[in-house]
Amino acid sequence: MQEYLQRTEKILSRLNQLAAITEEPGQISRTFGSEAFMKGSQLVKEWMEAAGLQTRTDNIGNVRGRLEPAPHSKRTFVIGSHIDTVQNAGKFDGPLGVLLGLDLLENLSTIKPELPFNLELIAFSDEEGVRFHTTYLGSKVVAGSFEETALTKKDAAGITLNEAIKTLGGDPEKLKHDAIPSEVWVGYFEVHIEQGPVLYELNIPVAIVTSISGQNRIEITLKGMAGHAGTVPMPMRRDALCGASDFILKTEEYARKHKESLVATVGKLAIPNQASNVIPGVVNFTLDIRSANETTLKIAEKDLRTLAEELCRIRNLELSWELVQQTEPVTCNPKLNDLLSEAITEAGYAETKLVSGAGHDAVPISKVAPVSMLFVRCYEGISHNPLENAEPKDIAAALRVSENFLHKLLQEQLQQQHIGVP
Amino acid sequence: MQEYLQRTEKILSRLNQLAAITEEPGQISRTFGSEAFMKGSQLVKEWMEAAGLQTRTDNIGNVRGRLEPAPHSKRTFVIGSHIDTVQNAGKFDGPLGVLLGLDLLENLSTIKPELPFNLELIAFSDEEGVRFHTTYLGSKVVAGSFEETALTKKDAAGITLNEAIKTLGGDPEKLKHDAIPSEVWVGYFEVHIEQGPVLYELNIPVAIVTSISGQNRIEITLKGMAGHAGTVPMPMRRDALCGASDFILKTEEYARKHKESLVATVGKLAIPNQASNVIPGVVNFTLDIRSANETTLKIAEKDLRTLAEELCRIRNLELSWELVQQTEPVTCNPKLNDLLSEAITEAGYAETKLVSGAGHDAVPISKVAPVSMLFVRCYEGISHNPLENAEPKDIAAALRVSENFLHKLLQEQLQQQHIGVP
Repeated sequence: MQEYLQRTEKILSRLNQLAAITEEPGQISRTFGSEAFMKGSQLVKEWMEAAGLQTRTDNIGNVRGRLEPAPHSKRTFVIGSHIDTVQNAGKFDGPLGVLLGLDLLENLSTIKPELPFNLELIAFSDEEGVRFHTTYLGSKVVAGSFEETALTKKDAAGITLNEAIKTLGGDPEKLKHDAIPSEVWVGYFEVHIEQGPVLYELNIPVAIVTSISGQNRIEITLKGMAGHAGTVPMPMRRDALCGASDFILKTEEYARKHKESLVATVGKLAIPNQASNVIPGVVNFTLDIRSANETTLKIAEKDLRTLAEELCRIRNLELSWELVQQTEPVTCNPKLNDLLSEAITEAGYAETKLVSGAGHDAVPISKVAPVSMLFVRCYEGISHNPLENAEPKDIAAALRVSENFLHKLLQEQLQQQHIGVP
Repeated sequence: MQEYLQRTEKILSRLNQLAAITEEPGQISRTFGSEAFMKGSQLVKEWMEAAGLQTRTDNIGNVRGRLEPAPHSKRTFVIGSHIDTVQNAGKFDGPLGVLLGLDLLENLSTIKPELPFNLELIAFSDEEGVRFHTTYLGSKVVAGSFEETALTKKDAAGITLNEAIKTLGGDPEKLKHDAIPSEVWVGYFEVHIEQGPVLYELNIPVAIVTSISGQNRIEITLKGMAGHAGTVPMPMRRDALCGASDFILKTEEYARKHKESLVATVGKLAIPNQASNVIPGVVNFTLDIRSANETTLKIAEKDLRTLAEELCRIRNLELSWELVQQTEPVTCNPKLNDLLSEAITEAGYAETKLVSGAGHDAVPISKVAPVSMLFVRCYEGISHNPLENAEPKDIAAALRVSENFLHKLLQEQLQQQHIGVP
């Protein structure tokens, strides 16, 4: 374990160096394509080169490093995470997976073992999507699913993604050449902080991710009748906020009842032209439903909509219900997860399985490759916040498990190669 | 009735002329002290003079007109309402009471009856309080309760009330001389649209106001724990919006249970730093409770606070509860209301009594004089809105009832004078 704690110190030192590169002094803010972002990715590139990797920055700004190519194979296994951040972020969300992966390949590079496939480390350039209100720009390019229509999107300053890519030194016309063809993929592995409180509450350092939740985002408007807060008797009211409150509580009750399989959240709520002495006539709010099970997600959306229709009928309110975003759940690869499970047991930790409620670069990659993820405990589940923290002993645990996992994968594939399995 | 409908045409014509004087073309906006306001009050002054009233504008901008003084009395009965408006107002809220009162005195002035007291019509200059976030500036001066500290208040452009008064031609030092001393008051009468839906629903033209609700305004904050909408399981959440929804529904239930004696409204609600994928950590909202009964109001505030404390305990939320405004209920004078009751019966209308949930100039006047109010039905209860409307036949009904009332009052007081009652 001492060895892994020492290597963790190096990882932490790099995390701190990267965190110091920021758009806003006193914060950690490194959004896609900013000067700080470019400085940060240059530093990551230098570290990769120093670690003996064949390194390049691709056209979307992903920093990519390969171990010496495997002599007999074009197939590729990718370890990755992202190096962009939200505004006023923590230092672990994204960079931990990249710099832990760098440490793994750095160590492997000194051993120079026989490789059954190519090993590539990718620092994805845009997972958070802060600048262009997109997500997964970097991993979509690698998965070959980048949509060209995104190139005309503009940031707050009116700069298009097309222009931003050129500023980064990329060529928007060549994005498709940066994809790893589907037949070449062996698999994908990502280490990431949990961003939730479960491991912290259970007092366990790491967990296998079984799936990444699908998500339905719905925009809801309830319309009643505005009125004077003093002059309209209670029985004559059509209060849109009372209707919204009714829906929020019923949604909470529904999600608690199905707590093993879903979460539901009303995160935004606004009353247009609100005043303390006016009965709310209109309320706009959002509903976010997530589940690892696609059927559960569909049924939940239907059930909650029925519930909203029912209460609007009783309260004489008009309902508008618009599904504005829908992402399917992703199942992590069972065979890779079996290896992760062995790796955890071998390292002496309790085996825990979690569903990821947050999206990750593994989502677009899952369309073309088997994916796997290891979650690392973080303080109180806090992320997207300067308070975000992962303890050194937990990072060391994740490093040890990841190294076990990688060795098992290499061993297994080598054996298959030697006995002729393609 | 034909006579009252004809006089209503004149009142409506004046209402339309006044409504055409506005700060914003296409709207009715005439806030205290604006150019449009000064033009409007000049027009009202000219109408009063033409009606044979002794007219002056006082130091707060109230336009005041008196019938020829009663020879044996300094005592004064006031008929009034306001001529300022909210932004994008209707044309009846305020001006109806002034111009209906003008018609009453205009008619009386041609008859020149023996008067037991002075009759004064007042067009109050600021009831809505839009410009300086105050209310009742005009009627407070007449009631002698104007607070001098208000003179330093600034409008959105940084102009103080002190300066605004000077621009109007007033002298802030002389405001106190415009008060009617308490020993001089006989009473106060105001005609106003209901601003609520009760008469509209009951299909009745006018109502006697028994009292004006007291009001408690409370600012509430619930603090829980923000978190990622995907990663925090339902049982681990401390969702401040679910807490607020719980409170809003329980408040609605409480107010419905006590619907005969109170109304309660959450009109404003805000979630700082809200996002659709973040569990609300903090919610700020307002609570407005109104009742004609002071004890009911006190008990309701205590009950609702207990209810909030209880649900915050269960939900592990922090509660902040700040009473930011408290106005006592006003009881209208039973003797004046008896006369109003007779006047309504004589005119052949059903007698209905209502509590006013909105505040009126009668509130400050009630501190120094017996007050009475007559409500006029308005379309769907809508006010503070261009859709505000009162039908001519309802205005005619109010005019007829008010004239009956005034004659009864004069008769009664003359009789008392003749038999030596002071």
